[in-house]
Amino acid sequence: MQQLKAKTLEMRTPQATKTAVLVIGGAEDKVHGREILRTFVARAGASKAYITIVPSASREPAIIGGRYIRLFEEMGAQKVEILDIREREQCENPQIKASLENCTGVFLTGGDQLRLCGVLADTPAMDLIRQRVRAGQLTLAGTSAGAAVMGHHMIAGGGSGETPNRSLVDMATGLGFIPEVIVDQHFHNRNRMGRLISAIAAHPDRLGIGIDEDTCAVFERDGWLQVVGKGSVTIVDPTELTHTNEPHVSANEPLNVHNLRLHILSYGDRFHLYQRTVLPAVHRLPSYGDSYGDNVS
Amino acid sequence: MQQLKAKTLEMRTPQATKTAVLVIGGAEDKVHGREILRTFVARAGASKAYITIVPSASREPAIIGGRYIRLFEEMGAQKVEILDIREREQCENPQIKASLENCTGVFLTGGDQLRLCGVLADTPAMDLIRQRVRAGQLTLAGTSAGAAVMGHHMIAGGGSGETPNRSLVDMATGLGFIPEVIVDQHFHNRNRMGRLISAIAAHPDRLGIGIDEDTCAVFERDGWLQVVGKGSVTIVDPTELTHTNEPHVSANEPLNVHNLRLHILSYGDRFHLYQRTVLPAVHRLPSYGDSYGDNVS
Repeated sequence: MQQLKAKTLEMRTPQATKTAVLVIGGAEDKVHGREILRTFVARAGASKAYITIVPSASREPAIIGGRYIRLFEEMGAQKVEILDIREREQCENPQIKASLENCTGVFLTGGDQLRLCGVLADTPAMDLIRQRVRAGQLTLAGTSAGAAVMGHHMIAGGGSGETPNRSLVDMATGLGFIPEVIVDQHFHNRNRMGRLISAIAAHPDRLGIGIDEDTCAVFERDGWLQVVGKGSVTIVDPTELTHTNEPHVSANEPLNVHNLRLHILSYGDRFHLYQRTVLPAVHRLPSYGDSYGDNVS
Repeated sequence: MQQLKAKTLEMRTPQATKTAVLVIGGAEDKVHGREILRTFVARAGASKAYITIVPSASREPAIIGGRYIRLFEEMGAQKVEILDIREREQCENPQIKASLENCTGVFLTGGDQLRLCGVLADTPAMDLIRQRVRAGQLTLAGTSAGAAVMGHHMIAGGGSGETPNRSLVDMATGLGFIPEVIVDQHFHNRNRMGRLISAIAAHPDRLGIGIDEDTCAVFERDGWLQVVGKGSVTIVDPTELTHTNEPHVSANEPLNVHNLRLHILSYGDRFHLYQRTVLPAVHRLPSYGDSYGDNVS
């Protein structure tokens, strides 16, 4: 019984020593507790972390990269460097290849997600990152534009303040680290529910994930994601969709979408990417979270 | 078989001669097709309609009331008048009582929903309207503030651009014509998904209904609502809710809400208030809508 309880707890506790993919909604705290960035460093190996920062999305790679270098060094990472890939050709550079083969963490900064994809997509550097992430050798984090590129389909831009419609969202192809999802960031902060719903209506075989600022969805390799940070992670799940007019209407006509499932997750809540189950945080509402642990003891 | 098909069609066709409650998201078209206002006049009796306009929510009752008088007269209503109730005492006035006993349509204008409730709630005039609406003797319409008052719980104000939280929405008591719902209006236009979700987290025994501008949910007496107009009607259904931290967190902390069902309905789509079922519009996508009619013939 004690064993089962221990197993339950372990299942629900962040696995600080294992790699993960951290999808950050932008504007993560860099001044106070810096919990999200600390989580990244911890999951990349803590005092043994070798972190490469990829600021390719940004127009000011030296400034933005320099800031993250100082932050990660302050947090005790062993080695931190910037891989300022500006051109696709650089992705075949042996030095860049060596960095990506040896690092334990890759951090994709904010900026323009189209630029980031334009530089990295279908390059040897990209293949190497993906392969090492899948093998559990590398912790990957992306914030803002760096978060947007995580899915196979990517939101490249769009609007708000409108009824969901096809012209409310511009889609492109992302880097596909977590191909199942369509990520939107700065989510409630910039009122992006309408554009995420529009994106999911067009791609109902994917899962919509809207991440607020200073908030992170930590994707574990077993399919669970867990929320860290001060806002919410919104899940728009079309598994039970019964109807949408999406392909049949013109770009400005209102979309209809019937039977979406919607979860607003906050700190510590967990969601399983494949089972599509949701678990409330243990430590916030012990009455819920502990219930089945208590039942078996 | 023909009979069954006819019954199916009848069930799905607006019943122009029967009374209804029209909940309008504000800014309804007053210049071009004016479909929503025409639907109201038709459902109030068309050329036999006797319409009373209640502009109590507005600070400019004569201007706003005068505009609707001209519109409804142009549309062929037999009699149109303004009941400019400014004080609760007026609600016992025999002339106002006589109007509300004899009219076939009541139209609640926009303005301030708290003002409208302050004047009308728990008055004989209010009781009379509610009683005649329930008896199917009166078609009721409300736009903007006039829509907000429809539920028992009412959204009195709130914000956007934030993670759902308790301080994002101010709740008050509405007029309760359709007590089961919490209505929000100017919905996608003013990015109000977050505040409606916050309201539903606090009242998960209700149904959230967000109505876009120039859009109307026509509630039939049999429990079906149907969408008319150019935007969408959003349904936030907490029937299957498994968890919310709503009563346990402080006002500014992010809410979590697990397992909401979400429908974005567009023109002609129908939703049943009690069965919680959704039907796509017949005339927009015959392949879906006609399917079970075809099966029986």
